[in-house]
Amino acid sequence: MLRFAALFFVPAALASSSFLEPRKFSLVSRGTNLDGSLPTYKNPNASIEDRVADLLPRMTLEEKVAQIIQGDIDGWMDTSNPLDNTLVFNQSGLVREAMISTKAGSIWAGYQMPYEKFVFALTVGQKYLMENTTLGIPAMFQSEGLHGFTNNGTIFPSPIGLAASFNPALLSSVANIISTEAEGLGLSEIFAPVLDMSRELRWGRVEENYGEDPFLTGEMGQAYVSGLQDGTRRNVTAGGSGGIRKRMASTCKHFTAYGSPMNGLNLAPVVGTERDLRTIYLPAFQKACMESLAIMTAYASYDSVPVRLYVLTDILRDEWQYPYWVTTDAGSVDLLITFHKTCDTRECAAKAVIENGLSGEMGGGSYTYLTLPDQVAAGTVNESFIDETVKAMLRTKFTLGLFESPYPYDDYLSTIRTPESREVLLHMEEEAIVLLENNNNLLPLKNVSSVALIGPQANRVTASPLASTLLTSFDFFGQFGDYVFFNASLNGITPLAGFQEFLSNSSSSTKVNFAQGCELWSNDQSGIAEAVSTAQASDVAIVMVGTWSLDQTLLWTPGTNATTGEHVDLSDLSLVGAQLALVQAVINTGTPTVVVFVSGKPVTEPWIKEHADAVIQQFYPGELGGLALPEIIFGAVNPSGKLPVSFPQSVGTTPDFYNWLNGMRPIPPDPGMITDNGTLIFAHEYVLGDPVPLWAFGRGLSYTTFSYSGLSVPRSIGTTDNFNVTVTVHNTGSVEGKEVVQVYLSDLVSSVVTPNQRLVGFQKISLAAGASQTVSIEVQSSQLAVWNLNNEWAVEPGVFIIKVGTSEEVFAQANLTVTA
Amino acid sequence: MLRFAALFFVPAALASSSFLEPRKFSLVSRGTNLDGSLPTYKNPNASIEDRVADLLPRMTLEEKVAQIIQGDIDGWMDTSNPLDNTLVFNQSGLVREAMISTKAGSIWAGYQMPYEKFVFALTVGQKYLMENTTLGIPAMFQSEGLHGFTNNGTIFPSPIGLAASFNPALLSSVANIISTEAEGLGLSEIFAPVLDMSRELRWGRVEENYGEDPFLTGEMGQAYVSGLQDGTRRNVTAGGSGGIRKRMASTCKHFTAYGSPMNGLNLAPVVGTERDLRTIYLPAFQKACMESLAIMTAYASYDSVPVRLYVLTDILRDEWQYPYWVTTDAGSVDLLITFHKTCDTRECAAKAVIENGLSGEMGGGSYTYLTLPDQVAAGTVNESFIDETVKAMLRTKFTLGLFESPYPYDDYLSTIRTPESREVLLHMEEEAIVLLENNNNLLPLKNVSSVALIGPQANRVTASPLASTLLTSFDFFGQFGDYVFFNASLNGITPLAGFQEFLSNSSSSTKVNFAQGCELWSNDQSGIAEAVSTAQASDVAIVMVGTWSLDQTLLWTPGTNATTGEHVDLSDLSLVGAQLALVQAVINTGTPTVVVFVSGKPVTEPWIKEHADAVIQQFYPGELGGLALPEIIFGAVNPSGKLPVSFPQSVGTTPDFYNWLNGMRPIPPDPGMITDNGTLIFAHEYVLGDPVPLWAFGRGLSYTTFSYSGLSVPRSIGTTDNFNVTVTVHNTGSVEGKEVVQVYLSDLVSSVVTPNQRLVGFQKISLAAGASQTVSIEVQSSQLAVWNLNNEWAVEPGVFIIKVGTSEEVFAQANLTVTA
Repeated sequence: MLRFAALFFVPAALASSSFLEPRKFSLVSRGTNLDGSLPTYKNPNASIEDRVADLLPRMTLEEKVAQIIQGDIDGWMDTSNPLDNTLVFNQSGLVREAMISTKAGSIWAGYQMPYEKFVFALTVGQKYLMENTTLGIPAMFQSEGLHGFTNNGTIFPSPIGLAASFNPALLSSVANIISTEAEGLGLSEIFAPVLDMSRELRWGRVEENYGEDPFLTGEMGQAYVSGLQDGTRRNVTAGGSGGIRKRMASTCKHFTAYGSPMNGLNLAPVVGTERDLRTIYLPAFQKACMESLAIMTAYASYDSVPVRLYVLTDILRDEWQYPYWVTTDAGSVDLLITFHKTCDTRECAAKAVIENGLSGEMGGGSYTYLTLPDQVAAGTVNESFIDETVKAMLRTKFTLGLFESPYPYDDYLSTIRTPESREVLLHMEEEAIVLLENNNNLLPLKNVSSVALIGPQANRVTASPLASTLLTSFDFFGQFGDYVFFNASLNGITPLAGFQEFLSNSSSSTKVNFAQGCELWSNDQSGIAEAVSTAQASDVAIVMVGTWSLDQTLLWTPGTNATTGEHVDLSDLSLVGAQLALVQAVINTGTPTVVVFVSGKPVTEPWIKEHADAVIQQFYPGELGGLALPEIIFGAVNPSGKLPVSFPQSVGTTPDFYNWLNGMRPIPPDPGMITDNGTLIFAHEYVLGDPVPLWAFGRGLSYTTFSYSGLSVPRSIGTTDNFNVTVTVHNTGSVEGKEVVQVYLSDLVSSVVTPNQRLVGFQKISLAAGASQTVSIEVQSSQLAVWNLNNEWAVEPGVFIIKVGTSEEVFAQANLTVTA
Repeated sequence: MLRFAALFFVPAALASSSFLEPRKFSLVSRGTNLDGSLPTYKNPNASIEDRVADLLPRMTLEEKVAQIIQGDIDGWMDTSNPLDNTLVFNQSGLVREAMISTKAGSIWAGYQMPYEKFVFALTVGQKYLMENTTLGIPAMFQSEGLHGFTNNGTIFPSPIGLAASFNPALLSSVANIISTEAEGLGLSEIFAPVLDMSRELRWGRVEENYGEDPFLTGEMGQAYVSGLQDGTRRNVTAGGSGGIRKRMASTCKHFTAYGSPMNGLNLAPVVGTERDLRTIYLPAFQKACMESLAIMTAYASYDSVPVRLYVLTDILRDEWQYPYWVTTDAGSVDLLITFHKTCDTRECAAKAVIENGLSGEMGGGSYTYLTLPDQVAAGTVNESFIDETVKAMLRTKFTLGLFESPYPYDDYLSTIRTPESREVLLHMEEEAIVLLENNNNLLPLKNVSSVALIGPQANRVTASPLASTLLTSFDFFGQFGDYVFFNASLNGITPLAGFQEFLSNSSSSTKVNFAQGCELWSNDQSGIAEAVSTAQASDVAIVMVGTWSLDQTLLWTPGTNATTGEHVDLSDLSLVGAQLALVQAVINTGTPTVVVFVSGKPVTEPWIKEHADAVIQQFYPGELGGLALPEIIFGAVNPSGKLPVSFPQSVGTTPDFYNWLNGMRPIPPDPGMITDNGTLIFAHEYVLGDPVPLWAFGRGLSYTTFSYSGLSVPRSIGTTDNFNVTVTVHNTGSVEGKEVVQVYLSDLVSSVVTPNQRLVGFQKISLAAGASQTVSIEVQSSQLAVWNLNNEWAVEPGVFIIKVGTSEEVFAQANLTVTA
């Protein structure tokens, strides 16, 4: 131990230390039992706690520490060229160079490479761990998967679009596909879902979230987690006394309150109280993640504390009894030194994180956890913190059956991009589209001889052949949003191609006239004239504008540009460059115009709301977004998406989430404006602006109409009674359509200030024209509770308003009285 | 008691109740002693606590409640016409109609009227209380005075401008004048200073604050409080055992955290923790208000709690032992019902406020405190809360000597607008001006034959004759900012008149060519051509643009307009209407151009910073602002103001205060921009914007230059040691100048995240050309403390950087080590 400590004292000495050679353990019995029996930890029928209890004492301190530091397949593989398929690995890198020996519990495998090489890489690493280490503890291989398994798996719409579907069952199917594609290739942990909330729209990562609402985020998060995790790996028997019951570890992130960084700047501090945690940030995690096998912590400080003892230990571990793996985010432990300035040494940072969070350390930093053995020896860190963290990791692995099924499957190709997954993908693309405006029922287009397809978003996701070197031009970027890997966009279809395919498949004679009009990233208006003449020559114009992001390689490459994505933060939410001028020029032709926003976040353009004939919001789509759009526009599919986030009038009226606290503004406010001709109409909230969003949470039009009747809630309930909200929905229009029945609650009087309204339930149904359905949505009594002045949840007697509608409309309303 | 309660049960019955006739008390001994001796409470030589203890038991419950509800002189005076001078009062209004009988402790007298009538009104009310009530308790008559006694007293620059002086001694002189003018007219309480902080710039009330910094706010607040209060009223002997020692009650407001409303909307909830209270919001109150005789609470909820037991009771009363009067703001008790929704009855609201805050109720609402006698009778409110609140009021009155000197003075005219006060006013006007840019030393102007004075701010504060009816045109509004009363602007001098007067007094031949160019409130650019030709015909152009507010009558009148002031909140911080076009047109003439912002808050115009030859920030001035400006521009006075608030690049980069928490942004950030020709330069913080302000806190240029040498701080101190920062300042230029030596502190490592820097001391000095002065600024050990994870203040050992400079510049720097 002392020699160990001495060796670790100077971290720079690590790489060359002979100590890091494959170890020849004197206790050969550690990985076996002396009597020849199977060690309990290798018995899949033993309980998970028994397996953990058996394995932990067999581990040396260094093995424990290695278990909680993330390794990386680039330690033994050349990952620099995504097209290279050379099946070689670096033996000393695998074993010696601070990889398997010191970073062996979880291993980052988030690289784009040919599948053959990828499987080779994982197999080499895993076999080494299983067969060449004494204990044979398999690693969890990890990658991203917010909206598709990123190692060239199927890419679905960005999470903000997934949320717009308001369809948890469909999202579960999506996550199930993500899991299947990843599992075959040997992955066992996916870093998703993101349960941050889009309450600070300048932040670049808005697209990674399920919107602004705690309840919707929790429901969608839970659907993702169960879809990703449920089932068992091959060659593993589920359930029984062994407790093996998941096939993939979902990683809820970023725990917690990461979505509201000050000034919208990535990593910036978040201001908030325990009440804000309890009522805004934690509910989605509590709903979605108690069964997720991993949780990732957030980078930001909250109330000036970067490592949240209170949240990670008191709430997550003690109060919620969360037993599984918790990891920090890439490089975040070092941020205590470089960014938050609460530590000045790696020792301090490692100690702070392990003691206050029982979390592992991800790569991307200086591997501060390498100081832990020395700190244990010196008595500055108690080994019990390390033990508890290792136990959490082992619980996750045993629950996965990873010891029994650690390897890729031979037939991995058969589980990627199947016909069934394409069908789910297309459904999700369709349901992710939100129809915001449809004046005079311009949509769906009928009997048009030609449409002008205009705008810089209309011909993206090109299938241009890829050079074997990194792209240096932006001609190839996709509109998939962030958290896809290099060249993912090659699997997508552009809207232009999608329109052509759709019309061809429909044997339609409608002609598509394309004009790009302008680039996304330029003020150059020289292409607008062509767009104008194209619009003039067509029956209807469709203008596609918005924001853009890049894949994870290009997004971080100097010299590239983007307007959304991680570390891409905006100070203005309106259209960039010449885009608004393009839209205005097209609309001003008088040709009926549909504006399509393709964006990772709300775009604030009140002029477009005022003047476009129809407006469609397509959050960053996935591979088939280009096909789903014409389906919607021509009415093959009836739109059913709803906004998971409100669209403010401008950046100066943010934050603008629908569930603002009472007292936020007068009802109604007194808004001012600048008219189109420049006339200034002065008022107070705001002087020349409006705090009411352009389009608010829950909004989304349909080609049919719905009416609601027979709303029924109990007249009176006790404080612990759940209750049902029952209402009958009628499709009063002429086409089949899907409707999201949304239930909102307002607490009329309470001991602390509550939101003016909040979503407490929803259900998506499909109704044939003329059909009706009675929907019953259960609301838990706990959903009525306030976090009171005693820092406790309490359901307070009084009157609550139950509303069925959207955040901006009331379809039916009733009072509910809670009695003591 | 029961009869009393019954009568009060229906508040509507109050006005007609015979119970409210002047009361004939059976206990005639209440106001005297039976033995004929002077009651202790009437003895100015008795201690304040003895007087309180003597008086309280003599009071009936109704008298106690009347003591803590604010009355209003409009109860017996016709206040509708500010020019009317009829010396009559309404006897039944004074006595019966719910005025003296039920609202007698403090009385609102904030009305513009001729002094003769004003004094008459106060005298009638006070005499009634002194001579026609049993106990003879005088009322505090109250008015506003943020930057001048508002009942037609001298108006000084708005508080944000007062703060720009960084001159607490001068501010004390200002407050002393305010007090003198008010005292003569019979006032005893002034609702100032405002210690909110301008950390949410959209908020309309930014101009009422001393800027964004807790330390500067505390220093300026303390200066105001002592300047306003110190001394004794006439006919009163100060000090001694009696404890009479103040002449006017200052009212620190708004306690607390009111300055950061969500979305910048007035009254909106504030998000924050106890740490934010301790480190941001409370220090200024603790510094400035422990001797202020009154404190006013805030409208907003904080952490969802509108009535802050923790802050008002636990901290203010228990921890700080604050003994004096605390009042709510106008109508704010009712907001619990109508806005915050934490009560549904007036009884609930009254109970919540008295029990959780020991605060009185201001008018402007439904007088919920009228329910208190009944609630005491019913046992729902304990009378002890009322007693404690009354005691606080009585302490304030006894400390003022109000029982001995309750009336206006006969010679009140002699103390208003004296030559001495004009001198202080002019000094403050001069020191409130901040020189932000001065390319090629364009300023001060020398040897210019003509200047073009251009812009909608150049000829404001006209002395047009006033009709005897309310103004209906905006021709007459002033640029004084909010919190002045009707027609205050008539006492001011416009910049145009000021230039003419200054040049005439200097026997200068420089000609002033005036062109308004545009209105503040219009996009009409038709006047710009004249402005351009005026600029072309002049040696130098001075363009005056900015924001505007209105007096307290017009500001709340429907149909008026303003861009700053109470309930006037912005969603955009750039110039309104045609103003930027005017500035651009003038600058583009090639005539050297000085842009003067006259504004109540930062204006965000990066183009102007980039292109103007010089930029001057004049926050809303007072009566002589129009004269101080040419003094600065022509060099009769060397500018010495410093920014008390940072100027962001745009509303989308706010909040942008200098003392942001570590982790807020990379150092340096990676800013993008849109160039003048429309080229988009993409980056990350922000994509097309910059989080670094245009001009930051502490900035302000001079016509001379200063250098710093010999910075000295102790190498090492203990955790309880105060220390001195000593530095020698040299005037290395050719003219005399004033410099603000600013000391900033950065905590290199701490247990919780701290601001990247914060101001801990400053001193304004005056130095002749070539002269030097050694300045020593003491820093308290408590200023090093962090509010730690145990919710305690702690000075943590470690290294601190001590910087002398501004928030954006380092003139000298040294390390200080604190040892355990």
